[in-house]
Amino acid sequence: MTVTLADIEAARRAIAGHVVRTPMLPAPKLSALTGASVRVKYENMQVTNSFKERGALNKLAALGAAERARGVIAMSAGNHAQAVAYHAARLGIPATIVMPVTTPFVKIEATQAYGAEVVLEGESLTEAQARAEASARERGLTFVHPYDDPLVVAGQGTIALEMLEEAPELDMLVIPIGGGGLIAGNAVAARAKKPTIEIIGAEAALYPSFWNALNGEHRPVGGPTLAEGIAVKNVGVLTLPIVRALVSEIVLVDEAHLERAVNAYLTLQKTMAEGAGAAGLAAMLAKPERFRGRKVGLILCGGNIDPRILASIMVRELERENRIVSFRLTIPDRPGVLGVIATRFGQLGANILEVEHSRLFLDVPAKGVTIDVTVETRDAAHADEIARALAADGYRPQRIDAGAAME
Amino acid sequence: MTVTLADIEAARRAIAGHVVRTPMLPAPKLSALTGASVRVKYENMQVTNSFKERGALNKLAALGAAERARGVIAMSAGNHAQAVAYHAARLGIPATIVMPVTTPFVKIEATQAYGAEVVLEGESLTEAQARAEASARERGLTFVHPYDDPLVVAGQGTIALEMLEEAPELDMLVIPIGGGGLIAGNAVAARAKKPTIEIIGAEAALYPSFWNALNGEHRPVGGPTLAEGIAVKNVGVLTLPIVRALVSEIVLVDEAHLERAVNAYLTLQKTMAEGAGAAGLAAMLAKPERFRGRKVGLILCGGNIDPRILASIMVRELERENRIVSFRLTIPDRPGVLGVIATRFGQLGANILEVEHSRLFLDVPAKGVTIDVTVETRDAAHADEIARALAADGYRPQRIDAGAAME
Repeated sequence: MTVTLADIEAARRAIAGHVVRTPMLPAPKLSALTGASVRVKYENMQVTNSFKERGALNKLAALGAAERARGVIAMSAGNHAQAVAYHAARLGIPATIVMPVTTPFVKIEATQAYGAEVVLEGESLTEAQARAEASARERGLTFVHPYDDPLVVAGQGTIALEMLEEAPELDMLVIPIGGGGLIAGNAVAARAKKPTIEIIGAEAALYPSFWNALNGEHRPVGGPTLAEGIAVKNVGVLTLPIVRALVSEIVLVDEAHLERAVNAYLTLQKTMAEGAGAAGLAAMLAKPERFRGRKVGLILCGGNIDPRILASIMVRELERENRIVSFRLTIPDRPGVLGVIATRFGQLGANILEVEHSRLFLDVPAKGVTIDVTVETRDAAHADEIARALAADGYRPQRIDAGAAME
Repeated sequence: MTVTLADIEAARRAIAGHVVRTPMLPAPKLSALTGASVRVKYENMQVTNSFKERGALNKLAALGAAERARGVIAMSAGNHAQAVAYHAARLGIPATIVMPVTTPFVKIEATQAYGAEVVLEGESLTEAQARAEASARERGLTFVHPYDDPLVVAGQGTIALEMLEEAPELDMLVIPIGGGGLIAGNAVAARAKKPTIEIIGAEAALYPSFWNALNGEHRPVGGPTLAEGIAVKNVGVLTLPIVRALVSEIVLVDEAHLERAVNAYLTLQKTMAEGAGAAGLAAMLAKPERFRGRKVGLILCGGNIDPRILASIMVRELERENRIVSFRLTIPDRPGVLGVIATRFGQLGANILEVEHSRLFLDVPAKGVTIDVTVETRDAAHADEIARALAADGYRPQRIDAGAAME
């Protein structure tokens, strides 16, 4: 192997005290959900809220005085950017981060806040990458690769050392896989410490780069995913052989499972996982028979998710559970009718969230009106009970919400 | 004192291994936000997601065989219910939980899921409490009080022992205060271990029970609060003298600060705090000069918040930051105009979330229409830039969102 247990143990000494030894806790609710015995390693509790600090710091700490003085450069619009910026600033190393011109302002700002210079170059990650590498050569800067560097891979591998110290009984680690740095480092560490442990990779179904490489397939790679942290089009040159040697299976996770996993972390574990951070749990939800009864360690590798997306995931889940439902009712268009209906919903124990009137539908009599009432219910049975009561009252209720559409 | 350090150390031995030794971590982002040096104790990572397990288990563990066989009863619609239910089930003790008839189904279900019998009795918490105490007498059950019991108070106090072991440099603990069990136990433990440490209570401004008792005031108590876990109308008989002796100040927190604190935990710390759980941080936001420069330990005491409320807090915060803004535009009512406007928003870099038409406003010409367009922006400056561009285009934009209302 190009990265050895000794490298990872050296990394551990190099970063000790400067990254958080994150908590690992049993997760009885996720265990009940999956039928496995689940422990979660909370890498989202690092200062910049992802595991990327371990690899970045291990790389920075290895630089000589002259390299430090010249500075470092990295390409990333996400967690790697913040990790490099934060630790470079802490060590007094000038840092330049190249991001594609399309990067959302909030990510630029988060990285600048750690004191890095952000340069917007290139339309895509690939282009930005090329620019960053060119800049590194021209300006004599050290390039900090997000995964294809033995020091970075060794840094990430320190997670498994901590996990197996605290829970030597684990017989499986499920690890998100993008460029492969996280899984490669942890596969080396875990298999060296406990040769019988199984390593499973969780890869976004829209970005099956390792799946294709390992299985000789050519599934299409691309598209908008909730797991943008592992949306990587090319496998790592350094990481691929390690993954091939030590990882027993790649599980592809689709967007629905990623969304469910993010929601499960939030509502059951009270913690915020980004899509990529929840990919391991998503794999367990996607293929439960593969994990049932096993002692599984999950690396919740990052928590940087856009609050608006998280809010929308939570509301969609409530709709799926029929705790938020919408009814379309046809009612006579005269004073007082809405009052009667609103009162009726109240009697049925439904809390009205939104009312929308429409007079434009042609299937409604000219003197009638259609209203869409969105209510909060206790559960699916309660939603059905309300529908029956409204039908008995003659309102001809139609369900028009997500929960109904899925039935 | 009716509860001593020795009681708390005994509690620690009694509950060791059966409750989570929760992580405590430095919170650099909350430190930057408040100007203090903040550490957070994550009691929301207990299995039932609140500190209540410590007191409940300490009480249950102290019962004799005959008492265990007869069973226990508690009154709570919240975290105490789940804590008693979970540990009673684990110990094989029959548990009855009395809840008011108005309790949301999801809370009933969560408690039943731990194997407790849930009985709905009484219109209010006070009534339910009376019924539970009566049942306890009639049926010979042991009543597990949520705070007014020395064993419960001693159990809660184990948190401060863990905090001061890991961070002996703390010079202040900020602790949510409802019935006073959490703050009383931890004040005893912390002041015994470190007599110079200051203890501050964070009480909901709508429920200033301790504030009134300590300051001889009669502020009104009641109303809907985000911090329902500390919405307690009467101070504890056991806890009041301890609080009077050991707590240096009560800070009242209003709903806006509670909401900001919940949001800060979520977006900065990637963790879910319920309103009561975030009250300590809310106190720091409410009275920053009291905490600036100090080494502050916060107890994030619970994470059980309704997902819909959390989603709405997140979206409201985005509105406040002008990252979600709504414009009302007056446009001619003819084909193609919406297309032109939508394209214009796109050019300006604003992502359209919602469009609403209205033809009913009388201040709009008969051939005109008003549309409300809600968009996502990069930040407040971007929102202003969009407003200026729309004005220059002649659309007479009016801001109708929360952010604008606050200016």
